[in-house]
Amino acid sequence: MATRVIGRVLATVDVPIEMARSTTAAALRQTGWGDKEAAMQADIMVSAELCGNNQGLVKMFQPKLMAPAPGAAPPAVERDALASAVINANQSPGMLAALMAADLACDKVLGAAGRGGGSAAELPAIAIVGAYNSSTSSGQLAYYAEHMAKRGVVGICLANSPEFVAAAGGAKPVFGTNPMAVGIPTGAGAPPFVFDMATSAIALFGVLTAKAKGEPLPPGVAYGKDGKWTTNAAEALDGGAIATFGGHKGAGLALVIELLAGALSNAAVLGQCESKKAAKSWGHTVIAIRHEALVDGFGGKAASVLAAVKASGPSIRLPGESSARIAAQRRAAGTMPIPKTIWDVIEETARHGLK
Amino acid sequence: MATRVIGRVLATVDVPIEMARSTTAAALRQTGWGDKEAAMQADIMVSAELCGNNQGLVKMFQPKLMAPAPGAAPPAVERDALASAVINANQSPGMLAALMAADLACDKVLGAAGRGGGSAAELPAIAIVGAYNSSTSSGQLAYYAEHMAKRGVVGICLANSPEFVAAAGGAKPVFGTNPMAVGIPTGAGAPPFVFDMATSAIALFGVLTAKAKGEPLPPGVAYGKDGKWTTNAAEALDGGAIATFGGHKGAGLALVIELLAGALSNAAVLGQCESKKAAKSWGHTVIAIRHEALVDGFGGKAASVLAAVKASGPSIRLPGESSARIAAQRRAAGTMPIPKTIWDVIEETARHGLK
Repeated sequence: MATRVIGRVLATVDVPIEMARSTTAAALRQTGWGDKEAAMQADIMVSAELCGNNQGLVKMFQPKLMAPAPGAAPPAVERDALASAVINANQSPGMLAALMAADLACDKVLGAAGRGGGSAAELPAIAIVGAYNSSTSSGQLAYYAEHMAKRGVVGICLANSPEFVAAAGGAKPVFGTNPMAVGIPTGAGAPPFVFDMATSAIALFGVLTAKAKGEPLPPGVAYGKDGKWTTNAAEALDGGAIATFGGHKGAGLALVIELLAGALSNAAVLGQCESKKAAKSWGHTVIAIRHEALVDGFGGKAASVLAAVKASGPSIRLPGESSARIAAQRRAAGTMPIPKTIWDVIEETARHGLK
Repeated sequence: MATRVIGRVLATVDVPIEMARSTTAAALRQTGWGDKEAAMQADIMVSAELCGNNQGLVKMFQPKLMAPAPGAAPPAVERDALASAVINANQSPGMLAALMAADLACDKVLGAAGRGGGSAAELPAIAIVGAYNSSTSSGQLAYYAEHMAKRGVVGICLANSPEFVAAAGGAKPVFGTNPMAVGIPTGAGAPPFVFDMATSAIALFGVLTAKAKGEPLPPGVAYGKDGKWTTNAAEALDGGAIATFGGHKGAGLALVIELLAGALSNAAVLGQCESKKAAKSWGHTVIAIRHEALVDGFGGKAASVLAAVKASGPSIRLPGESSARIAAQRRAAGTMPIPKTIWDVIEETARHGLK
């Protein structure tokens, strides 16, 4: 594995993709996870890292934080109904809760194997699953939306997290980075279209990564403790706040996701708890739609829209396009670059366990 | 009724609210609508006008365009299923199709009167209704989301329209202004929270209104025929395009709504039709969620979030706050200002029919 130095401080190592996945899973087992949960979380983080997303293996930088939370139990389904359910994550990580919610929503509209059969006509075309009481972020939300689209449904995933984001300059943080992701099947054999965005001007892991790399933040994405703009990641993290994107519309969307992924999923909400950070109850709301119930040939229609938008001008880049290109290049090479400081921790933990 | 002159060219008349509603309904009957359809459309337009929204009575400026389309039939329900349906608007106006979709989605999760009873436990907690083939815009999308929230459900309304909006500078228009609205109940007796935004930088009726008023557009919301920014509304309308809001995230959201409210609702999509304008098939997708199935006390939780966000800083204005204040002031006064040129047309049409 070659070590490369990018910029001032960022050294990366090129790691074979399968080794990244298996070593990360081994490190997670060392922190206390069973085989299945370790493999699931490793796949989610490696998938994010593979496409250059900033919510990937950075999560492993402090492996202690990835260990099962004290007193945690496996996520459990509550209020299970025809077209809805709620998952109590029981302080399990957001990754496990979000994937379980995504699969349960898909099962409800597609019919789960072993559910006793039943034709599509008897199944609801749409289902909603909320998840609350997870102890950490689910990471790159696109993973779950893509997973759903690969199962053949339209997937809408919303996530709510503790207070990092302020609704305006000079205001206290109230929102999470409150992302939304949408996965759209584009026809048999074709990769799904996936849209994933935080309603904050930058993802929390973007700020953490900037701090780790010692790089400045872009202008207009974070406030310092004094409520004024800062490009210093450490200042933003120390009593400051992240901004919402896109003016008052972005702030409104952040609020809507706070309501749909926080209040509706039964997660902790401000005003009913002192602090969402202290309550440690991250929320997710996942919606699956069996498009065949509404329209024939949805995949082809979606592909047609995407092609028309791509062809509408010389400089159009579709959402997910550069992520997909980066992932494809890395798959072709068989290796992916991982920050050396992070990879060292993963390898060390896989070999010798938590220190 | 007093006539006031605001700015350079905009004269308004103060019209009693009930008179505005009944006269608009009378004008619509003169264009060929029956009592019920005229009253519904008048209420939707007057409600928008009442809260200062730019998609209100401006629609009546050319009443001929509000007449039933040639060959149109009432909207009809297709693919009616447990938790989903599709409405073929049969070239009826978007207002009628969207309201029918909103009510049908509510009925599916709440149980419609006369449906043979059935407890909530047997009803799906979520339902989706698409509407296609409507001949015009549904106007202010907030109306339908608020209507759903007043019926006690979470309402999500997405709309797709012909190509007015470009995905980037120098690109051909591909998107509609593709708005989304979300209505959230906040507890018994309390007014719902309603969020409504176009994913374009300005609503189409904002551009039309600026042209009618002879006012410049804000900077950064529209392109001219040459693909460069313009503040001239006429230039934007003549072969130009409206921009999306909020950088690449806003453009991505516009695309997602194109897929969810256009492709999924069975409306016309680019690549499968030469022109959405020519195809005259506007699309809507409406989702209703019975929140009681997921969480107890949702209204209180939502109200708590809204109060915490409002209190988080000195300058926080919640979505819908100024609309609600304007509407309340006008309700207290009993009258609302209407542009004189528009009111003259409505009165003239109500008295003497189409010219």
